[in-house]
Amino acid sequence: MTGPMTRPLSRDGALALDRVGALALDHADKLAAFRERFALPDGIIYLDGNSLGALPKATPARLARLIAAEWGQDLIRSWNQHGWIDLPQRVGDKIGRLIGARPGEVVAADSTSVNLFKLIAAALHLRPERRVIVSESENFPTDLYVAQGLIALLGGRHELRLVTPETLAAALDDDVALVLLTHVNYRSGRMHDMAAVTRQAHDAGALILWDLAHSAGALPVDLAGCDADLAVGCGYKYLNGGPGAPAFLYVAERLQPEFRSPLTGWLGHAAPFAFDPLYRPAPGIASAIVGTPPILSLAALEIGIDLALEADLAAVRAKSLALGRLFAERVAQSCSELGLTLASPAREAERGSQICYAHAEGYAVMQALIARGVIGDFRAPDILRFGFTPLYTSFVDVWDAVEILCEVLATREWDRAEFRRRAAVT
Amino acid sequence: MTGPMTRPLSRDGALALDRVGALALDHADKLAAFRERFALPDGIIYLDGNSLGALPKATPARLARLIAAEWGQDLIRSWNQHGWIDLPQRVGDKIGRLIGARPGEVVAADSTSVNLFKLIAAALHLRPERRVIVSESENFPTDLYVAQGLIALLGGRHELRLVTPETLAAALDDDVALVLLTHVNYRSGRMHDMAAVTRQAHDAGALILWDLAHSAGALPVDLAGCDADLAVGCGYKYLNGGPGAPAFLYVAERLQPEFRSPLTGWLGHAAPFAFDPLYRPAPGIASAIVGTPPILSLAALEIGIDLALEADLAAVRAKSLALGRLFAERVAQSCSELGLTLASPAREAERGSQICYAHAEGYAVMQALIARGVIGDFRAPDILRFGFTPLYTSFVDVWDAVEILCEVLATREWDRAEFRRRAAVT
Repeated sequence: MTGPMTRPLSRDGALALDRVGALALDHADKLAAFRERFALPDGIIYLDGNSLGALPKATPARLARLIAAEWGQDLIRSWNQHGWIDLPQRVGDKIGRLIGARPGEVVAADSTSVNLFKLIAAALHLRPERRVIVSESENFPTDLYVAQGLIALLGGRHELRLVTPETLAAALDDDVALVLLTHVNYRSGRMHDMAAVTRQAHDAGALILWDLAHSAGALPVDLAGCDADLAVGCGYKYLNGGPGAPAFLYVAERLQPEFRSPLTGWLGHAAPFAFDPLYRPAPGIASAIVGTPPILSLAALEIGIDLALEADLAAVRAKSLALGRLFAERVAQSCSELGLTLASPAREAERGSQICYAHAEGYAVMQALIARGVIGDFRAPDILRFGFTPLYTSFVDVWDAVEILCEVLATREWDRAEFRRRAAVT
Repeated sequence: MTGPMTRPLSRDGALALDRVGALALDHADKLAAFRERFALPDGIIYLDGNSLGALPKATPARLARLIAAEWGQDLIRSWNQHGWIDLPQRVGDKIGRLIGARPGEVVAADSTSVNLFKLIAAALHLRPERRVIVSESENFPTDLYVAQGLIALLGGRHELRLVTPETLAAALDDDVALVLLTHVNYRSGRMHDMAAVTRQAHDAGALILWDLAHSAGALPVDLAGCDADLAVGCGYKYLNGGPGAPAFLYVAERLQPEFRSPLTGWLGHAAPFAFDPLYRPAPGIASAIVGTPPILSLAALEIGIDLALEADLAAVRAKSLALGRLFAERVAQSCSELGLTLASPAREAERGSQICYAHAEGYAVMQALIARGVIGDFRAPDILRFGFTPLYTSFVDVWDAVEILCEVLATREWDRAEFRRRAAVT
């Protein structure tokens, strides 16, 4: 991928030599118009859309109508009249278009954690003679916790084998039922080669489950093209579905006839309104639905996804890389001597849509940045995480963010008691 | 309980001899003012608040502020600044006050079905030497489905033993780990004696799990007073939390030290933001939280609960019984010969906040009623269900509903093709 947006200014590959150069990159950015579709606060540089995506401007009116007209006036009839009953599959199919799934392979439901439980259990059911789940020690903790809880529930016959990306291949013996990986690491941003790792897992006779929390909506994903088995993901990051938006799950069509969710709720039944006392799974992906979905949150998620579907994901990825490149270059030029160590892969093709630095006083530094209006994330023990959401992050945002970061470090502005005190959620 | 509201007009115990009498009952009703707190559609008699509760007038403004200001402007900071992170326990404690639980015994989370899974699994863990779950064949299907799914997951070593209320006592042998009952039956409205049945279960050495879907907010419940072990319930019925509102679960304080949820997500961890790869459950009820909660839906639920907390539940129960009594009397007087058979207990003390009739053409009859603006529920195979939500159902609503029901039956208005065609959700 080349062209004016990714290599716009200088012949040596650097992106912007000054702030005017950053503004020129925004001027040339074909995705720039999307920023107007989000309600962003004044005076804030928001580099945390990978923790909570911004509010689409279309969402308040949609929710107001849903609440006042559909819930308030049409009441119970809205399940049919306004298609509430179809939302998990309708929204799921839309998400599917962002992650290379076929219609009928995705539903929006529950939380990522609950969906992990369904799919890890289903994988063990599909590989009954195998007893190992392979994952990364650096995986997002909930993925590991859910596997640990399931293993305990099943009596401890299974093993959670934790590896690094480097030791993964060696761990794939013929006792491995499932490889459980997050495509883009939540902390470092390191991205797996989905096609290659899926092939490795399959060659070992294992299934693979991809957690797409930091991928869906941020970069092109091709689950079907990679022949992936199972996946989950998050609605409130790059899909801009709102705080705690429902998550999603994917089951490859070819696995669906044998797929069994352990969470057998009434909306996953073949005939929910027959009120049959015996559970019979609905055909296809619908059997992964459990209880009644939270319609307000699900409708907000749909707005975010509709907006994401308007953008070309290849362009999103190209801009994301360019934003990250600018950030890294500016840090290297201006403040690399001030205690920052790059904690993301140096090669940008191996990164998701974020960049991270370790700093011994990371927590306080991030609090000082937030006080200056630059919102990123701290991730224990020492990581400053900056997320790039190309639909609403501009090049000048990145330019200004690094300027402020360097000031905060140069002046030791972070070294104050108020910035060292930890809040409940960091 | 006596007095003008429950026995207002005639000396023979009948409630209202004519429509003016029903209006007089409304005039004397101390809960009548609550109706103005709900946004109800004109021209509709809504007797389906036990399927989807009505919209509190305070909800749209709360959600608009949550979306525009908290999500839109304060973004990720709202987890701390606006207490999002505390919502599951804060809302849970409020629900606890409606169901006789102590602070720290309830959380709002997930769906009823997912919560059933957590608690049934936890109960089997607490009674490892026992292998039977006793429930009712007439229980709401999801309760049975979840038990079946869990039993299948655990390899079929456990048994789901289905009884009737009459055969329950005989089924409680020393192999029973858990008694799983819905307090008020979703179809018939039949209500268990919670104290007596809990005692029976405990006498047999079993735990008890009460499903309060049709109880919470509808009538006084005293979980702690009954020494109940476990409970779940629904946010979108009598709690008026909105379509698919998060559900809740209760674990008695005395069981919490040994309580183990099988769904071990990051927000149930003792230190979620330490990102420790090993799961350690949070102390107390917090370990029953799994993933990130759907904040929009949870905030709407809080509005409904705050409203419910303003009402005296004894008065709610008294009015509910009076509404049901009026309904039953009017049916007996006007249309009992037209194919209706009472399908609820004849003794009102044994009923929840609804009344049901079997009718051979129940589905079409309900469709005809809905076309006339009387919204109840059809429940397969042949049940017409009418729910009374005392905060917004009036006596004249009930009077008019029965008038229309009798007309629909007398004229066979239901006998049309359009009313026989079934929709996705009935």
